[in-house]
Amino acid sequence: MARLSLSDTDKQARDWFHRTTTDLGCKVHTDAMGNQFAVRPGLKNDQPPTYAGSHLDTQPSGGRYDGILGVTAAVEMLKVLNDNWVETAYPVGVVNWTNEEGARFPMSMVASGVWSGDIPLERAHNLKSVIPANDTATMKTELERIGYLGDVACSWKASPMAAHFELHIEQGPILEAESRRVGVVQGVQSYKWFTVTVRGRDSHTGATSFQHRADALLTASKMILASHKIASKHSALASTGILTLKPGSTNTVPGFVQFSLDIRAPQDETVNAVEADCKDAFSALAAGENVLDINTGCAPSSRTCSVDWRTDFVSPATHFHDDCVACVQAAGADLCGSGDVNGKDVGAWGKLMTSGAGHDSVYANKRCPASMIFVPCRDGVSHNPAEYSSPEACADGANVLLGAVLRFDKL
Amino acid sequence: MARLSLSDTDKQARDWFHRTTTDLGCKVHTDAMGNQFAVRPGLKNDQPPTYAGSHLDTQPSGGRYDGILGVTAAVEMLKVLNDNWVETAYPVGVVNWTNEEGARFPMSMVASGVWSGDIPLERAHNLKSVIPANDTATMKTELERIGYLGDVACSWKASPMAAHFELHIEQGPILEAESRRVGVVQGVQSYKWFTVTVRGRDSHTGATSFQHRADALLTASKMILASHKIASKHSALASTGILTLKPGSTNTVPGFVQFSLDIRAPQDETVNAVEADCKDAFSALAAGENVLDINTGCAPSSRTCSVDWRTDFVSPATHFHDDCVACVQAAGADLCGSGDVNGKDVGAWGKLMTSGAGHDSVYANKRCPASMIFVPCRDGVSHNPAEYSSPEACADGANVLLGAVLRFDKL
Ligand SMILES: NC(=O)NCCC(=O)O
Ligand SMILES: NC(=O)NCCC(=O)O
Repeated sequence: MARLSLSDTDKQARDWFHRTTTDLGCKVHTDAMGNQFAVRPGLKNDQPPTYAGSHLDTQPSGGRYDGILGVTAAVEMLKVLNDNWVETAYPVGVVNWTNEEGARFPMSMVASGVWSGDIPLERAHNLKSVIPANDTATMKTELERIGYLGDVACSWKASPMAAHFELHIEQGPILEAESRRVGVVQGVQSYKWFTVTVRGRDSHTGATSFQHRADALLTASKMILASHKIASKHSALASTGILTLKPGSTNTVPGFVQFSLDIRAPQDETVNAVEADCKDAFSALAAGENVLDINTGCAPSSRTCSVDWRTDFVSPATHFHDDCVACVQAAGADLCGSGDVNGKDVGAWGKLMTSGAGHDSVYANKRCPASMIFVPCRDGVSHNPAEYSSPEACADGANVLLGAVLRFDKL
Repeated sequence: MARLSLSDTDKQARDWFHRTTTDLGCKVHTDAMGNQFAVRPGLKNDQPPTYAGSHLDTQPSGGRYDGILGVTAAVEMLKVLNDNWVETAYPVGVVNWTNEEGARFPMSMVASGVWSGDIPLERAHNLKSVIPANDTATMKTELERIGYLGDVACSWKASPMAAHFELHIEQGPILEAESRRVGVVQGVQSYKWFTVTVRGRDSHTGATSFQHRADALLTASKMILASHKIASKHSALASTGILTLKPGSTNTVPGFVQFSLDIRAPQDETVNAVEADCKDAFSALAAGENVLDINTGCAPSSRTCSVDWRTDFVSPATHFHDDCVACVQAAGADLCGSGDVNGKDVGAWGKLMTSGAGHDSVYANKRCPASMIFVPCRDGVSHNPAEYSSPEACADGANVLLGAVLRFDKL
């Protein structure tokens, strides 16, 4: 599965979503970020719907469950409600959020961020594609091209939600390792995305001594190592997923390198501390100083590099709403048959957990109660073609999603 | 100047070369690698011409002198011979070699290498373009496209040379620092080019702990640092000018990285020792071991990367021919007016030196006597838009080139 946001294949998935939810009796509308909202009426329709949903876009290397499980399970919920003639007290909705991955347009959860009012529409519309390379498309031109620039404003006021529930694969190894069927997600860790630019000097690889170089790639390599050392020290994560350089020739020392830096930790303060330490270390490394014991063992160069930081995205730590967490927990206990459904204790079947990855529920949670359901995935692997959750795990998740929505509807 | 080999602008430069040398009374032919040979007749034409020349292609980031000075000074030599009614004993030639840089087709001096019989024609013709990215062109398809796939065999037998002289900017800082006008080049250092491939596992940056990662980019960063540590220890050079990764998304740990490695030293044995040490270190780093004091300070990952090496190009250390070196030295002394023209001593005007960069003279030297002339360039910078040699330095070089060719013709 490689379905980059707003690509031709994403359009196919959106067409499927629109057709299927319409056929299931929903009213469907699309907003100015391409978010799709399908609403099934309830007995009383003077209150906003309780939503289930996630996203249908993927990373360049998949997988088939990340986001997709959450949308398909929500569509399945509509079928189950129809087949069983269930009338909910209030309307129930299914949402497909645009570009959750932040892979093609490098801001994750950007469309729920516009919906919640945290990200300006203009900024989101002007985001440039980073995949494929040299693509000049923006979110707006691609929304127009595939016919999904909706005429409803992208906002929590225009498309209000009573609550937002999201089923997702864990994307980590814990549930599998501990043989638990369901993760009751209480929150999401803090993260920030940066673009770091290192400028040195193009020079000849054969005729330029180490002492005369300003090697932007050697310097960036030291920075990547430094970011890992610093994150390790703070029990945080630091990762570089994109790196480009210029001019790109075997016998020219690169004078320009740009790379992404993704910093995460449970607490905002920890992310900020890693950022501050990295800023210090990168400046020192660009200036040719030996810090954190990172050096090449040769005399320092007489030329130095410069380093610039751009902050691309900030997602503070999120704590989901107690009511929604309780609905998920109770639905899990209903399915799995043990645990204290009213207290904070989860039975052997489940685990209270914090998500390492960001999700649209983060922004949804700013405008309505929200929570998430995790199911185990093989080997904890995600953003990878090998991503896999068993049919049984998917069914568990779908059942808990249905149960949580119905419980919230009753609330 | 950005004139990648066999591009449209390279075709323009070739057309200029053909037209100009023909107008100056030369017979011009092109061989199966696109090398252009212009021959001005001598009194006796039963022996091969004495050649001057270099290349007209450039790196993606220039500059305007690297190679170009050698060809234009050789063309100027033809004009001076004509204007002064000079009749040489034997023919005199000017050569423009194809893709000397190895920037677009990643094998430097490839067309003189085919001419000398060191590189098979087939292998050269099938070399794939690495710039622009995703280009599918090969040397052969590009030679055909721009109309420079000549019908003369590419070989020292079909286009024989009595000698090969090449004027070039130094591409290093020594002549300028020591205020010397001319470098008398006795040889070229040894070098090897490799492509290193690191395979890890794509995974989620937010949901995958350091202990569960096989991060191909972190591992490649360590390898780049290691190559510099090892090269420093051996007083050699190691450089990475190209690095690509997959899948290339901010929130996916890259599972695939490929990078170029260029190792150089005056002696073949040193290059081989750096290669061997890098092979050991890279294997250990891929396996997650802490070697050369390169580590992230966290517990090793339970997953490892793999590493593969491909050798792309080998250019052993070259020692130019004594006769040619003596011709250059004598021509330098003629111009600058001092120094022992018959002995090994060079006056204050010049310096006997070894080239850090490779040149077509390396392969020419395998089939005929050869030597080179260096002139100072500002700040030692090359493969950079800022590359510069003063008009005076260029004129010095052109005069020494002319003098060396006439002296060899007399020899
Ligand atoms: N779930 C998921 O992969 N979200 C993408 C945003 C992030 O990088 O955490
Ligand atoms: N002179 C020059 O830049 N040659 C390219 C081959 C090399 O990398 O040394």
